Amino acid sequence: MPEDHTVDTGCHDDGANHGHHGYIGNQTGYLRRLKLIEGQARGLQRMVEEEAYCIDILTQVSAMTKALEAVSLGLLSDHMSHCVVAAAREGDEAADEKIAEAMKAITRLVKS
Amino acid sequence: MPEDHTVDTGCHDDGANHGHHGYIGNQTGYLRRLKLIEGQARGLQRMVEEEAYCIDILTQVSAMTKALEAVSLGLLSDHMSHCVVAAAREGDEAADEKIAEAMKAITRLVKS
Amino acid sequence: MPEDHTVDTGCHDDGANHGHHGYIGNQTGYLRRLKLIEGQARGLQRMVEEEAYCIDILTQVSAMTKALEAVSLGLLSDHMSHCVVAAAREGDEAADEKIAEAMKAITRLVKS
Amino acid sequence: MPEDHTVDTGCHDDGANHGHHGYIGNQTGYLRRLKLIEGQARGLQRMVEEEAYCIDILTQVSAMTKALEAVSLGLLSDHMSHCVVAAAREGDEAADEKIAEAMKAITRLVKS
Repeated sequence: MPEDHTVDTGCHDDGANHGHHGYIGNQTGYLRRLKLIEGQARGLQRMVEEEAYCIDILTQVSAMTKALEAVSLGLLSDHMSHCVVAAAREGDEAADEKIAEAMKAITRLVKS
Repeated sequence: MPEDHTVDTGCHDDGANHGHHGYIGNQTGYLRRLKLIEGQARGLQRMVEEEAYCIDILTQVSAMTKALEAVSLGLLSDHMSHCVVAAAREGDEAADEKIAEAMKAITRLVKS
Repeated sequence: MPEDHTVDTGCHDDGANHGHHGYIGNQTGYLRRLKLIEGQARGLQRMVEEEAYCIDILTQVSAMTKALEAVSLGLLSDHMSHCVVAAAREGDEAADEKIAEAMKAITRLVKS
Repeated sequence: MPEDHTVDTGCHDDGANHGHHGYIGNQTGYLRRLKLIEGQARGLQRMVEEEAYCIDILTQVSAMTKALEAVSLGLLSDHMSHCVVAAAREGDEAADEKIAEAMKAITRLVKS
């Protein structure tokens, strides 16, 4: 992840600039949470295989959805604190672009 | 609404009666979908490890939440068609109990 | 709303059969809650007119959404206890139809 | 990020500074939309009074919830473009504060 642009915020979506995204400070935390969520997905398969009661499966799916939602809100918060703030300081055009992009993600979150 | 009460609908939550839950006819389908969701959880870990762009990760989390939501709605539909209908035919008390239980699951779904 | 069909559950969508829907026992309660929600909509207009702080308006919109959601869940519960149960007792075809219809309403609720 | 600190962004919650909130440019639009939503609340009361079919009422409640959600997302977008951007330019502390506040509103939106 070498990076030498003097004012590069790292908030790119080009796949080439790494190492500076908003969530990077919490990378280990997110990995751990996603590993737990992967485990929940495996637990659900076991419940279906063992023919658990429908409502008990639904309860576990809701717990997993909640865990995913918490990851989303965390990522969004990190993104705002880092990339949106950086874009705001870069100028109006950059700010408008990042906010439009963030609003699309928020809309998907709200509707899902 | 005659009902031979020896007929077990299998819609229990006691962990002892298996094989008759509403989703059983689709057991393979649910397992396949949950396996895909497990794969999505692994894909998200890869994205975080490779330091993908925050918004791209959020898009994938939304896709995964949508997939989980579809599983929930499918399980709920199967549960209603099978267990709630069976309870309704069993009597008022059984119906009230199953509907209160289903409403709790629906409320969790709506709020998550 | 006189009604003399011997086994009419009243759970129709034809606009002709009134007086037996699931929520009728709570009609006054629902009217009161909807009147409060109407008042919330008026309160929001006042906030916008008086140029209240954006976040304070958002908080009130969330409160109003929560109130609407509670009305939805109440109506759905009444509908299930009354119309879905009646359909289940009527036969498999009636049950399937009412459950498919209820699932569409639940899906809209979950997605909104 | 030079910022003349006498410039008031107007993004306050103290009730004293009016006229500069993010949504002010669309004030008439928001009032019109909230008036329509108020009309929907009255329409729902009429439906309950006239004993409309439960599912038809639920469909209208969903439409009203969707309209409210659109107002929320619009207000949030205006707030971000205006108040969050202004706070980002003011400094790290102001940015952190506004983002924490916005995230609380987004979390309420996502959960409702």
